Amino acid sequence: MSLKPISDIGEFGLIERIAGIAEPTLEAVPGIAEGIGDDCAVYALSPSKVQVATTDLLVEHVHFDLLTTPLQHLGSKAISVNISDICAMNASPRYALVSIALPSKSSVTFVETLYNGMSEAARLYKTALAGGDTSMSLNGTVISVTVTGEAVKEHLTLRKGAQPGDLVCVTGSLGGAAAGLKVLTREKGIMVEHLRHGESYERDILSNLKEYDEAIRQQLLPAARIDIIEFFHKHNIIPTSMIDISDGLAPDLLHICRRSEVGAIIEEGKLPILPQARHIADEFQEDAVNYALSGGEDYQLLFTLKSDQADLIAPHRDITVIGRITPADEGMLLQDIYGMTIDLETIEGFDHFTGKE
Amino acid sequence: MSLKPISDIGEFGLIERIAGIAEPTLEAVPGIAEGIGDDCAVYALSPSKVQVATTDLLVEHVHFDLLTTPLQHLGSKAISVNISDICAMNASPRYALVSIALPSKSSVTFVETLYNGMSEAARLYKTALAGGDTSMSLNGTVISVTVTGEAVKEHLTLRKGAQPGDLVCVTGSLGGAAAGLKVLTREKGIMVEHLRHGESYERDILSNLKEYDEAIRQQLLPAARIDIIEFFHKHNIIPTSMIDISDGLAPDLLHICRRSEVGAIIEEGKLPILPQARHIADEFQEDAVNYALSGGEDYQLLFTLKSDQADLIAPHRDITVIGRITPADEGMLLQDIYGMTIDLETIEGFDHFTGKE
Repeated sequence: MSLKPISDIGEFGLIERIAGIAEPTLEAVPGIAEGIGDDCAVYALSPSKVQVATTDLLVEHVHFDLLTTPLQHLGSKAISVNISDICAMNASPRYALVSIALPSKSSVTFVETLYNGMSEAARLYKTALAGGDTSMSLNGTVISVTVTGEAVKEHLTLRKGAQPGDLVCVTGSLGGAAAGLKVLTREKGIMVEHLRHGESYERDILSNLKEYDEAIRQQLLPAARIDIIEFFHKHNIIPTSMIDISDGLAPDLLHICRRSEVGAIIEEGKLPILPQARHIADEFQEDAVNYALSGGEDYQLLFTLKSDQADLIAPHRDITVIGRITPADEGMLLQDIYGMTIDLETIEGFDHFTGKE
Repeated sequence: MSLKPISDIGEFGLIERIAGIAEPTLEAVPGIAEGIGDDCAVYALSPSKVQVATTDLLVEHVHFDLLTTPLQHLGSKAISVNISDICAMNASPRYALVSIALPSKSSVTFVETLYNGMSEAARLYKTALAGGDTSMSLNGTVISVTVTGEAVKEHLTLRKGAQPGDLVCVTGSLGGAAAGLKVLTREKGIMVEHLRHGESYERDILSNLKEYDEAIRQQLLPAARIDIIEFFHKHNIIPTSMIDISDGLAPDLLHICRRSEVGAIIEEGKLPILPQARHIADEFQEDAVNYALSGGEDYQLLFTLKSDQADLIAPHRDITVIGRITPADEGMLLQDIYGMTIDLETIEGFDHFTGKE
């Protein structure tokens, strides 16, 4: 029996092993079109319609910190990050199941505030909170959310499908979530210092950190880009591949390139970095480009598009073309503002198991 | 802000609050036929077909103890308990999503053994392991499983629907899981004593506790009664209501009675108690009837049937008629072997939050 720890093989290594073990179960169910390896599982509901389904587990102290996360926001984010996976398939959400494990000393108000946040987000995305499970936890709160969605079969967009010549596009702005986390982590330090000295901490995180409000909002209250999916459907735009940016632009583009067996080149000068993220990076003497590339949690959509469809997205102010897909042997490159290229594969997102970026 | 702890309102009180908060989200999704309150959520796929979906969160030290639970069994049980909920809707399972949170020091073999158990169970139930999420945990392992299933609309069986005069039926035998847990908990004590004294513990739980094997098996490796659902479909049997026994016969019958707005009377003498559970109860100077009524985790099906369909189930050796449905005002009664009646509402299952039975 091998006692090699999972930190040796990392999150992606682990997912590969699990996918291998799950593989034989797929044969018995003819409707399964995609198993483990994309943003969602895909199940054929009819010859013309597919169901997509995704699930996310949020663990206190690993994925969220109740000291710096308003509960209502946490509830909302738990829903949004799953809806974001549904959007990444070019699908529309339908219903959610929510499980929660709670310390028995949790207050009723704690649970109600959390579910109010979920309910508000669910209404925004026209998604029903249709079921779930409640149970006890001995150590901190755990939230598990599963969301299903539907798509017309021809609209379904996977990570694979990008081809050389395609445009690489991204929605919204990047780096905000990572920058917001920087500020919140510093603020937590101040908070803990106050409490350690027996002083009260009277600052309201959101109103007292106003100069960082957009970045903090991006971290605490990300919005799934369901508006972009609606724009696609309205204008008959079908990306050739798509993913949502949860790990960071570089590792998520890497997912597309690996599954599509292509390379890519993106231009640093075109990255839509949130201006506030640049200010925060300056304050921390860091580079906002790194927040965008490997910070993750921006929950924007990264997609590729046939170049002859450029006109269709041009009028949309919140979509930026940042590069193009190349043949696989050209690798995955970032061209900096001086024209120098850097290998993007050296910039991986944070791996929960190895603890390495 | 009320700081009343959730232990004050208990698991059912909490579910009621959550259902109230989720209610407004259901309106936006026309297909949702049943929200929170049954074994599964119900979503209309077409005028003639429904999808059912259920989710369960298993938390280490709350729902399982790795000292006494072989990992492969744990994986299998995580799948089976969800399939059991699908069966309770008279539906057939389709696909599962599995999330797992792991301490980073977990071995690769640990994860593979767990997933091998899930994969084996999934194949047994013809269910695809189609996706999921892996993440880190600081405190113990957490497993979240979501399973979807499908049913012809007329076959769908809810907790509500039982009517006075209906037969109350149960599958398999009862009390085994609770009896098995008794033995395993005692064995854990022996194990811990050995380790405390620096002695090795060489007993293999399953082979050394052979005289208790059926009860232990019922606790560690329960089987969802998909065979019963297949029998129903083959013989055109549609129960008027159904639930799977996860909390215990008494609280689960209470769920049916409350949702159906009826009463019930069941006969102690007819309860199909596992003989080994009786022996174990004797050993612990307890009553095996209590294991059956409030022990829970037997994952048998409890259902009601129009009395004129009694002939249809009579040939099945693993279905027992244990009582009948009565008008609501007659309450929920257990008639003991001497003909005395006891109010079953005083026997509730274990509540995770109040810590009370």
